[in-house]
Order: sequence, then C-alpha cells, then structure tokens
Amino acid sequence: MAIHAIAFDAYGTLFDVYSIAQLAEKFFPGRGTEVAQMWRSKQIEYTQLRTMCSMYKPFWEVTQDALVYVCKKLGLNLSLDAQNSLMGQYARLEAFPENLAALKTLRASGFKLSILSNGTTPMLQSAVDAAGMQGIFSHLMSVEVVRKYKTAPEAYQLGPDVFGVPAKDILFVSSNGWDVCCATWFGYTTFWVNRAGAPLEELGVVPHGIGSTLTDVIDFVEKFRS
Amino acid sequence: MAIHAIAFDAYGTLFDVYSIAQLAEKFFPGRGTEVAQMWRSKQIEYTQLRTMCSMYKPFWEVTQDALVYVCKKLGLNLSLDAQNSLMGQYARLEAFPENLAALKTLRASGFKLSILSNGTTPMLQSAVDAAGMQGIFSHLMSVEVVRKYKTAPEAYQLGPDVFGVPAKDILFVSSNGWDVCCATWFGYTTFWVNRAGAPLEELGVVPHGIGSTLTDVIDFVEKFRS
Repeated sequence: MAIHAIAFDAYGTLFDVYSIAQLAEKFFPGRGTEVAQMWRSKQIEYTQLRTMCSMYKPFWEVTQDALVYVCKKLGLNLSLDAQNSLMGQYARLEAFPENLAALKTLRASGFKLSILSNGTTPMLQSAVDAAGMQGIFSHLMSVEVVRKYKTAPEAYQLGPDVFGVPAKDILFVSSNGWDVCCATWFGYTTFWVNRAGAPLEELGVVPHGIGSTLTDVIDFVEKFRS
Repeated sequence: MAIHAIAFDAYGTLFDVYSIAQLAEKFFPGRGTEVAQMWRSKQIEYTQLRTMCSMYKPFWEVTQDALVYVCKKLGLNLSLDAQNSLMGQYARLEAFPENLAALKTLRASGFKLSILSNGTTPMLQSAVDAAGMQGIFSHLMSVEVVRKYKTAPEAYQLGPDVFGVPAKDILFVSSNGWDVCCATWFGYTTFWVNRAGAPLEELGVVPHGIGSTLTDVIDFVEKFRS
C-alpha cells in the first residue's frame, strides 16, 4: 500500500471549534464552554438529520440554526450582536498550535494535502487564510457539491474522485471519533488524532493509526512510503 | 384530510427511557441521570451513523454498544451484572402514566393504533407486555425489516406500506423533536408530545400539532374525523 494523498477533516482537526468557548463566555458569563459544546453537538446532529432526510442546507446556515437552538434550550438571550460575533468567529477559528509545522513537514515529504469537510468552500478558505495555511493544500473538498454531509458515502467519495485513486491510498485524518470510524468503513486508510483522550467509539471498527496531535501523523505516514 | 391510523414512536414517547436513570443510580451512585441521558444520546447517534454508512446492527446491540461507550467515557466500571441489569431494564421500561388510558380512548374512537420504532420486534413486544398494552396495537412496525433507522425515508415508509394509505393520512406521534420534524418532512401528519417543554428544533419545519402529554393527542385527532 502507498499513500498518495492526505485528506484532513477541518473542524476539530485543523481548527479548534472549542476555541469559540472563550468568545461565548464573553456573551454568556459562566456558560461559554457549555454553549460551545452543545453548539458543536447540535451542529453535527443537524447535518446528520438533514443528510438522512435529503434536506441539505449549507453548513454556515446549519451552524447558525444550531446556535439559535442551543441558546433557546439553555434559556439564553442571543442578541444579534452575539450571533454575528459568534458566527464571525467561526470563520476564523484558531488552529491547534502544532498544525502548521506538521502540515509543512508532511508537504515537504511529498504528500498532497487536502481538506475534506462539511464546511462550505468560503468557510474553509476563510479558516485556512486565518490560520496562515495559504499554499498548503492542493484541494479544499467541500461536501456542498454532493449536498450530503459526512458520514454519507457521497461525502467520503469526494477524496477518491478528486485524487483519482482508491480510498485506501488516501490517508484520512480526523479528530472526530465518529468521522474516523465511518471513513474507515468507507475504505480510507485512517488516522485518529485523539486530542481529548476519548475512548474509541463502540462501532466495531478501528482506525489504522491513533495519536494525540497532528504531529503524530508524520511518523505514521512514513510507514507507507516504501 | 382524514386520519386513518396513528403510528407512535416507542422510546421516549410510549416508554420512558429516562426511568432507567433510577436503576443506573443504583450501580453508579450520583451519576444515574448523567449515564441515562448520555446513553440515550449515544444510542441515537449510533443508529444515525450506522444508517448513513449502511452498517445496520439491531437496536438491542446498538443500545448495548452505547452503554459500553458511555461508561468508558465517564470512567465508570461497567460490571457484567450492571450491564445485564441495565439492558434487562430496557426490555421493561416504564410507560408514562397517562399513556394506557389515552391509548384506550383513541382505540375506542375507531383509530387503528401502531408503533413505528427503531426497536427490534422482541424489544417492542416485551415493552408492550410490560406496560400492560396487550391488544392495543394492530401493528408493531420495526425498522429491522428495512435495516435503516429513523430518520431514513425507508424507515418512515413502513407506515404507508403497512396501512396502504399515504403518509398524510397517518398521524405520527413522537416526543422526540428530531423524529417528529423529520416525519413531517417525510409527509406524515404529525404530533409532538413535548413532555420536556423543549424548544422546537431549528430545522425549518413545524409539526402539525404540539402538546405536552399523550392525552393531548385525543383532542388533536378529533379534528380530522369529519
């Protein structure tokens, strides 16, 4: 087996979605972490419900819907200012500190790097720019072209289609346990960046590699070069 | 429009999944509610991931997988005794107190009553028996025959197929906001038993009726008799 390209999940893997908790804390004192975590869960849930029901709506809008729901659920007043600020922050999420160096090393080793994400192309472009990752990725693959979110096969199929190789020749990297497990089912070679030290999802499938930061991808992928 | 039959969701709607918190509290003192709530969320998540990835596994097993995951995640030791007891409890969940009388009234009014559930047929039969609901339902529809969980259209299609009428002529009743919204998208006439007083999901779709207990279904459905 030879790895031809690497496809990274964006949110949670390259960009820290929980960094938003700090801003949420400003608007909702004492509730920032709770808001950020529930927002993320609800956002993912909505992508899955819409995918199963063939009711696609772009990720930016789904993200906003999830924020509105969470504030209602928690009994928090979401002012227009708070909504705009929090959504704006989503467009310039912080990257995890090791990411840029790790990506540069992988690129220097000759791997084609890409993003395969639920986010829209403008969201991804904006996050890449904000993180200083211009010129790193050969492709930003957004599920918007298939109108199905991960973990639908149509979404994962973007990688093989774009690179013209079977999924097993692409390394799919995600910090989301559900994402990495379902990508393994799909056929990718997979690496789980288990930043939170979470247990493996009980789905009866195991990623090919597991580490705790993006830097761990470097050693893993070296095994597939010869 | 005339309602021909009523299809009830089972878990959370007829049977109280959180009643399991009391038993969980016995095994995990101080953590019972947390375990029950996370167990339920993870169970639903696994049904959705498996549906999107065409990796069906029966609800009983998915429910067990979810319990195992949640205990690992919370750092709780799940003994075989605890696992067996908690799973056994799932087969004889408590019904909500108003349910039996409400169902009998609806049946006496001439409506055909059924269950449309993610649960396997043995799980549903067991729960119906434990709740003293024998003879109430003309059909127990389990998604096991289509190997797709709600909210996949194949799962909701069971109602029209079994009753031989369009979805709009069947009233679908669920206490799960996501379930009732997606059933509305599918085409059912829908009623949301919003027991928890939760906000409506931000999915851009509204159930046809909303109440707080199963008894509220009686008044709602009367409107569709003439």
